[in-house]
Amino acid sequence: MTQTHALPAFALDPAEQEQMHQLYRTLHAEPELSMQEHRTAERIEGILDELGVEHFRCGGTGVVGLLRNGPGPVVAFRADTDGLPIAEQTGLAYASTARGRLEDGTDVPVMHGCGHDTHVASLVTATRLLLRERQRWSGTVVLIFQPGEETAAGARAMVADGLWDRAPRPEVVLGQHVSPDQAGTARLSLGPAMAMADSLRVRVPGRQTHGSQPQNGRDPIVAAAAMVTRLQTIVSRELAPQDPAVVTVGTFHAGLKENIIPAEAEFTVNVRTLTPEVREKVLAAVRRIIRAEAAGADLEEPEIREIYDFPLNHNHEATAQTVLEALRGSLGEEQVTESGPQMGSEDFGWLGASIGVPTVFWFFGGTADGDPEGPVNHSPHFGPVMEPTLSTGVTAALASLLHWVGQTD
Amino acid sequence: MTQTHALPAFALDPAEQEQMHQLYRTLHAEPELSMQEHRTAERIEGILDELGVEHFRCGGTGVVGLLRNGPGPVVAFRADTDGLPIAEQTGLAYASTARGRLEDGTDVPVMHGCGHDTHVASLVTATRLLLRERQRWSGTVVLIFQPGEETAAGARAMVADGLWDRAPRPEVVLGQHVSPDQAGTARLSLGPAMAMADSLRVRVPGRQTHGSQPQNGRDPIVAAAAMVTRLQTIVSRELAPQDPAVVTVGTFHAGLKENIIPAEAEFTVNVRTLTPEVREKVLAAVRRIIRAEAAGADLEEPEIREIYDFPLNHNHEATAQTVLEALRGSLGEEQVTESGPQMGSEDFGWLGASIGVPTVFWFFGGTADGDPEGPVNHSPHFGPVMEPTLSTGVTAALASLLHWVGQTD
Amino acid sequence: MTQTHALPAFALDPAEQEQMHQLYRTLHAEPELSMQEHRTAERIEGILDELGVEHFRCGGTGVVGLLRNGPGPVVAFRADTDGLPIAEQTGLAYASTARGRLEDGTDVPVMHGCGHDTHVASLVTATRLLLRERQRWSGTVVLIFQPGEETAAGARAMVADGLWDRAPRPEVVLGQHVSPDQAGTARLSLGPAMAMADSLRVRVPGRQTHGSQPQNGRDPIVAAAAMVTRLQTIVSRELAPQDPAVVTVGTFHAGLKENIIPAEAEFTVNVRTLTPEVREKVLAAVRRIIRAEAAGADLEEPEIREIYDFPLNHNHEATAQTVLEALRGSLGEEQVTESGPQMGSEDFGWLGASIGVPTVFWFFGGTADGDPEGPVNHSPHFGPVMEPTLSTGVTAALASLLHWVGQTD
Amino acid sequence: MTQTHALPAFALDPAEQEQMHQLYRTLHAEPELSMQEHRTAERIEGILDELGVEHFRCGGTGVVGLLRNGPGPVVAFRADTDGLPIAEQTGLAYASTARGRLEDGTDVPVMHGCGHDTHVASLVTATRLLLRERQRWSGTVVLIFQPGEETAAGARAMVADGLWDRAPRPEVVLGQHVSPDQAGTARLSLGPAMAMADSLRVRVPGRQTHGSQPQNGRDPIVAAAAMVTRLQTIVSRELAPQDPAVVTVGTFHAGLKENIIPAEAEFTVNVRTLTPEVREKVLAAVRRIIRAEAAGADLEEPEIREIYDFPLNHNHEATAQTVLEALRGSLGEEQVTESGPQMGSEDFGWLGASIGVPTVFWFFGGTADGDPEGPVNHSPHFGPVMEPTLSTGVTAALASLLHWVGQTD
Repeated sequence: MTQTHALPAFALDPAEQEQMHQLYRTLHAEPELSMQEHRTAERIEGILDELGVEHFRCGGTGVVGLLRNGPGPVVAFRADTDGLPIAEQTGLAYASTARGRLEDGTDVPVMHGCGHDTHVASLVTATRLLLRERQRWSGTVVLIFQPGEETAAGARAMVADGLWDRAPRPEVVLGQHVSPDQAGTARLSLGPAMAMADSLRVRVPGRQTHGSQPQNGRDPIVAAAAMVTRLQTIVSRELAPQDPAVVTVGTFHAGLKENIIPAEAEFTVNVRTLTPEVREKVLAAVRRIIRAEAAGADLEEPEIREIYDFPLNHNHEATAQTVLEALRGSLGEEQVTESGPQMGSEDFGWLGASIGVPTVFWFFGGTADGDPEGPVNHSPHFGPVMEPTLSTGVTAALASLLHWVGQTD
Repeated sequence: MTQTHALPAFALDPAEQEQMHQLYRTLHAEPELSMQEHRTAERIEGILDELGVEHFRCGGTGVVGLLRNGPGPVVAFRADTDGLPIAEQTGLAYASTARGRLEDGTDVPVMHGCGHDTHVASLVTATRLLLRERQRWSGTVVLIFQPGEETAAGARAMVADGLWDRAPRPEVVLGQHVSPDQAGTARLSLGPAMAMADSLRVRVPGRQTHGSQPQNGRDPIVAAAAMVTRLQTIVSRELAPQDPAVVTVGTFHAGLKENIIPAEAEFTVNVRTLTPEVREKVLAAVRRIIRAEAAGADLEEPEIREIYDFPLNHNHEATAQTVLEALRGSLGEEQVTESGPQMGSEDFGWLGASIGVPTVFWFFGGTADGDPEGPVNHSPHFGPVMEPTLSTGVTAALASLLHWVGQTD
Repeated sequence: MTQTHALPAFALDPAEQEQMHQLYRTLHAEPELSMQEHRTAERIEGILDELGVEHFRCGGTGVVGLLRNGPGPVVAFRADTDGLPIAEQTGLAYASTARGRLEDGTDVPVMHGCGHDTHVASLVTATRLLLRERQRWSGTVVLIFQPGEETAAGARAMVADGLWDRAPRPEVVLGQHVSPDQAGTARLSLGPAMAMADSLRVRVPGRQTHGSQPQNGRDPIVAAAAMVTRLQTIVSRELAPQDPAVVTVGTFHAGLKENIIPAEAEFTVNVRTLTPEVREKVLAAVRRIIRAEAAGADLEEPEIREIYDFPLNHNHEATAQTVLEALRGSLGEEQVTESGPQMGSEDFGWLGASIGVPTVFWFFGGTADGDPEGPVNHSPHFGPVMEPTLSTGVTAALASLLHWVGQTD
Repeated sequence: MTQTHALPAFALDPAEQEQMHQLYRTLHAEPELSMQEHRTAERIEGILDELGVEHFRCGGTGVVGLLRNGPGPVVAFRADTDGLPIAEQTGLAYASTARGRLEDGTDVPVMHGCGHDTHVASLVTATRLLLRERQRWSGTVVLIFQPGEETAAGARAMVADGLWDRAPRPEVVLGQHVSPDQAGTARLSLGPAMAMADSLRVRVPGRQTHGSQPQNGRDPIVAAAAMVTRLQTIVSRELAPQDPAVVTVGTFHAGLKENIIPAEAEFTVNVRTLTPEVREKVLAAVRRIIRAEAAGADLEEPEIREIYDFPLNHNHEATAQTVLEALRGSLGEEQVTESGPQMGSEDFGWLGASIGVPTVFWFFGGTADGDPEGPVNHSPHFGPVMEPTLSTGVTAALASLLHWVGQTD
C-alpha cells in the first residue's frame, strides 16, 4: 500500500511537489528565533492570501487560518514555526546563514535545527490540497501556525491572545513533529506522548578578585562546576531506574578574563519528567543541591529563576487510536508504529488543554536511512531529507484531518 | 620623617596636585583594553609634548619618553597603561562606563580595575617635578608607558619593536604597582617579586544533541565541570604545601540554549608559580587532568592553547636593597616593609631581562584604612583613594630615580 | 475469593501454621553467609528425612528433595537459603545476632536481610501439604534449596555439581521472592522479570606517604572518590532515559590511619541492566571512567576484577501467563498484578537456562500495610510480617505446582 | 671535621656500635601500636636497670629515666616509641611481621614506619656513652621515652600522669626525628618547626537499601566521595598560596557488600596548619563543606568527632641557635642546615609548653643516598640505613645535651 493508494485524489502532482520543496528550502534558509518569526509569519500570510484562506494574527507572530468548507466538524491542526540558536553545519545548498538576537542581546546564528520548517511546509501543502479537493470533504479546519515552541511561549501567547475566542472551537487539536526515524514512517503513543519540561536559570554569586588571590574572593566557577557534577546524582541515585527523567545543564557562562575570578556564574537547567511526582522530586532535588553546594562554597544563596515549563503532552487514548488507524490507512500498516512516551517536550498540549479538547501528536521520520547514529533534532547536522519526509508530513496531516471532516466521496 | 622632609624640593604644590588628580580622574574614567590603549597613548603624548619631552611610539600603543638632562647615568621607569574587562562598581564620581571589544569580538565593559591609572598619573607627575627641578639632578630618565600588561603582550611588543635600539640602555629598570595595602606605605621583595603566570585556553569538544536525549550526544559541560573540579587537586595533592601555586579557571563558556546539549565548552586556566620546577609540574598536571577527563567522558582530546606566559619577576637583590633604602628615606622607615614574593604576575621583567639589566619592582598602598577585607585588584569595587596614594607613587618614583641620577644639591 | 476457597484441601491447620512459624523464627535467627549455609542445609535435610522425602546434597550447601508421587509431569521449585552481612535492626524477638566471615576473613554480622528464610519456610510447608494431600496430585516435584544466591554462586554450583544429572528434568522451574509489597499480594512479569547484575572489584593503586606530604605520594582516596563521582554520569548522561540501569558503588575501603595517605583504595561496583546492549555499554563506561580517572590522578592502571554476573531472568511468556492465572485463582483476582521488570537480580534463571527449560519467577508481598516508604530488601530494618506473608508464599507455591502436577479431584 | 673529632671521648667503639645495631634490629622487628608499647617499655626499663639508671613509668607505657650526675643544669631529651598500622614492605632481614589491634578492634599489621626505633636506639646509646664518660659532664639528664606520639596521646598522658612533678624541671626539652634526608646530616628551624595537626572522624549517615533500588535509600558513599572531592578546594581556593596547609583524608570505609547501599560511610580528615588563623579557617571550612554536602545529598547531619590535635612545635629561637651551633660543631658545618617549618606534626611541644620551658626539635637524615624520590616516613618502604643514621642520632643527642651539662674537660 502506498501513499497515493491511500489518498489518491489528494496526491501531489510534480508541480505541486516542486512548489512545496521550494517553500521548504526558503523556510530552511531563513529561520527566525522564538517569538521573532516576523518574516515567517508574513510569508505564511502571503500564501494564505494567495490561496484565499481567511486568517488573523494571534500571539504576536502566530498566524491562524480558517479553512471553512461547509457544515460539519471543526478540527484544528498546528504547525510550529520557530528556529534555534545553532550554527548550521549540514552542508546543504539551502543551509541557513541567518543570525538573530537572544533576549539578553547576544548575537547568535540561527538554524531550523528542530525541523519546524517541515511542519510549516507540510501544513501549507495539505491546505493547498484540501482546497483543490474541497468537494471531497465538509467542515472547518483551523490552521494554527504557532510561534515560540522552543521557549514554551507560543501556545500560551496564542491562547492568551484569544485564539479560541476568534477561531471556532474544534473537536480535536492535531499536531506532528519530524524525527530522526526513517522517512516514510510515523509513530504515535496511545497515552503520554511527550515529557514535561522545566527550565531554570541559576545565578551563582561569587566574589570577584584577582586570579592569583583566591583567598580574597569566592570562586563561583568551581562552585557551579560542583553543582553541575552533583546534579548528575538526581537521575543516578534519587529516582527509580524505571522512572525516565533527564536533568541537562545546557548553558554555563562565567568570566571574561582568565586572570580574574569572576563575580558570578550562570547556568541553566532543563528537566524532563513524565509524572507530576517525579517532576516535583527532581525539581526539589535540583534546588536542594544548588543551595547546598553554594553553602559548601561559602557563597550567598543562588538565585534560581523559572524560565518556562512545558506541560505533559498526553494523547487522548481513544482519539489517538483513530488517528493511528487513519495514519496506517494512508502510510501503510507497517509504516506506523505505536510507541511509548518521548522525553522531548512541546507546548502543543496547551492548545487543547486550555479549552478541554483532546489532542493527538505524532512523529514522522526524516532520515533517509534511519541511521540510529545519525544527527538528531537540535544537532547542527540535523537536516531531514526532503522526500519522502515532506510527502509523509502532508499525507499524515490529510489523513488525520479527513478522519474528522470526512471524505465525502 | 615625612615625604616633604625626604624630598623637599620635589614636593607638589596644591596646583600641581590638583593637576595630577584631574589627570587621574580622566584616566580612570576612560580605560581601554590591552593593546588598544589608543586614546591613553595620545593623552600621554600630548602631556609629553606640553612638557617638551622627546618621545616615540613603540609596540603599537606604547609611548617612550626620553628625559635627557645632561651627563650621567641612564635609568628607566615603567608605568603600564591598560584596563580590564570589568564592570566598575565603585560608585566613584569618575567611575568608568567605557566599553571595549575582546579579541573574539565580544563587547564588554572596561575598568581600570588593576590601578594602572595610578601608575601613569604618578609617573607623569614625577616627570613634571623632575623637569621643574632639573638643576638638581643629571643623567637620563627613560619613561616607559607600556601597553598590554594584563595580557603579557606589551613588554614583549615594545622590546620587539626596538625599544632598546631606540632608547639608551639603562643601568636599571624600575617599576611600581598599586596594591590594597595602606595608602602611604610601600613594600618590596629582595629576591623573587612576582610569580610566573601561564594562561591556557581549553576547548572541550562534545557532541551536540537535544537536551532530552543525552544518550545521543556527548555532554561537554559535565566533562568540563569535572575538569574544573579535578584541577583543584593539583594544588591540594600534588604540590608541597610550602610551594605556593595557584590554578584558577577564570572563564567557562558553553551553550546558547538550555534545552540543547552544546557542541563544546571552553574555559581558561591561569597558573601562578614561583619556580620553574613547580611550573613544569603544574602545567603537566593541568594537561594530564584535562586529557584524562575527556577520555573518561568519551570525548575527543581537548585543544589546549597557550594564551600567554608571564616571566618570574626577580628583584636583583643588591639593587633592590638600594631602592629599599631610598624608599625608606623618602616615605619613612616604618612605612616601607620587606616582603616575600607575590602570586600576582607582571611582564615588567622582560624590559630588563631582554638586555640583561637588573630590574626592581615594588608595591605602594592604595587603601585608606588598609582594610584587609577590602576590595583588591581586579575587583569591580577596587578604587584606590587618591591621597596619599598618588603622592606616594610620585615620591617613590622620584626617590628611586634620584638614587641613580643623583640629587646634585 | 480467598485462599481457602482456592485450595481448600491444602489449607494449613493451626498446628501446621505454628510449626511453619516456628521454623521461620529459627531460620531468621540463624542466618548464614553465601555458600556457608551448613546448618541451614542440615536443618532442611532433617525435615526432609522426617517427612520421608528422598534428597541429596548438591553444590556444597545445596539440598535437592525429590517428591515422587506417581506418574505425571516433573516440575521444579526453588527456594534460596543464604543471608547477608548486615547488622539486623528490626527489633524482632527472633532477630539475628549471628556473625560470619567474609571471603577475605573479615568478621561480620549476618542477617536474613533479603527474606530468603520466608522462601525456605514456604517451600518446606508446601512440601508438607503436598505429602498430606498426596492423593490429590500425581507427578514429581523437584525441591531445590539453593545456596549462595546473593553472590550468584549457588545456581551455577548446583548445575556444575550435576543437579540435572541427578534429578529428573522438569517441564518448568518455578521460584518466588518476598518483596516490600502488601502481604497477601503477588506480582509477576510476562517477560523480563529481573535485571542482569554484574559486580566488579576495583583496586586503585596509590603511593603511600605521610599525610602531611601529599607531594610525595599518590592519593588513592581522592582518585577513587572521583571515580565514584564520575560513575554517576553513566546513568545520567550516557543512557537513554527509558533504558533502566543502576550503577551502585556498594563498598569503599581505604586506609588504616588518618595521618597516612594509603597505598591503595578498593571499591566494588554493582551494575543492573535489562538488555545486553545496555549492559555492554555500561560495563565499558565503568571501565573507561575508572581508567581515565586513574590516569588523571597520575596513578597506575587500577585492577578491575569481575566478582560475578547474574543473568537476565526472563519469564517465558506463555508459561508465566498460566502461572499468573493459577496465582489469581488461589490468591484472588485483584491480589495478583502484572508488573514490569525489576532491577533486582537472581541467579535463579540458570537453573532453567542450563537445560533449556522455561522458568517463571514472581514476588509475594511481606509488608503489613504496604508502606511505600517502609524498609526494603537489604535494609537492616527489613522484617516481613509473618502472616499473611508465609501463607501467601505457601499458597503461591502450591497453586503454581499443582497447575502442572494436577489436582486430581 | 668528623663526628669523632667533634666529640672524641664519646665515640662508639665497635662493640658498642654492634650493641646499638642489635637493639635497633630488635626494636624494628617488634613495633607496637600507640599507647600499647608494653614490650618496648619493658625492654627500655631492662636496659636502664642494666645501666643502673633510676626510672619510673609515666603515662601508661611511657618510661622516664633520671641520669643524675652531680650538680648542674637539668636538661630533658625525648624519644618516642610507637609504631604504625602499616604492612612493612622494606624487604629488610629484620622487617616487622607484627600485628596489633586498633581501638575499634580491627586486627592490623604494625611497622616502625616513622622511624621511632632510631630515636630510642640513639637515646639509649647516648645514655650509655654519658654514663661511660660521666666524669666529663655534670648535671641531670631526664630521659623521656614517650609513647603514643602518632595519636597525640603520649605527651599529654605523661604530663597528666605527673611527669614534671616526678622529674626535675629542665631548662630545655630536646628532641629529634629521623627524616628522608641524607644520612649524616641534620636540619633545624629557628622558629616554627612542625605544623599543628587536627584529626576528625566523620560519620556520614545514609539509608541502607538494596543496591538495585537507590530511590529507596540514601547513598552515603556517593555523598562522602563528594565531601572528599570538595575538601580539596579548601587548600586550592580558600587559603592564600603562601599559607601552607594540608587537608588529607587518610581513611574511608563504607559497606560490606557490593549489592547493598550501606547505612553509613566513615572517613577521617587530617589537617595541617602553621598559624592559629589558618587552622581556624580550615577547620571551619571542613565542617562547612561536610555539612553542606550532606544537605545536598538529603542526608542527616554527619557526626564530626575530634580525634586529636597536635600543637604547633615552635623552636625557641635563641635556644635553637645554640643547638644549631652545637650540632654543626659535632656533625660538621655543612652537614647541618637551617630549614623552614615542616608540615609534619608532633606532640613533643607539650612536654615543654606544659611547664613554660623552651623546646628544640630537629631532624636527622636516614637515607643512604638522599634520593629525593625515595620512601618517606609512613611509607611501607621506609627503612633508614643503620649507618651513619644511628651514629648521627647519637652524636646529635650528645652534642645538644652536652651544650647544657657541659664538657668538663
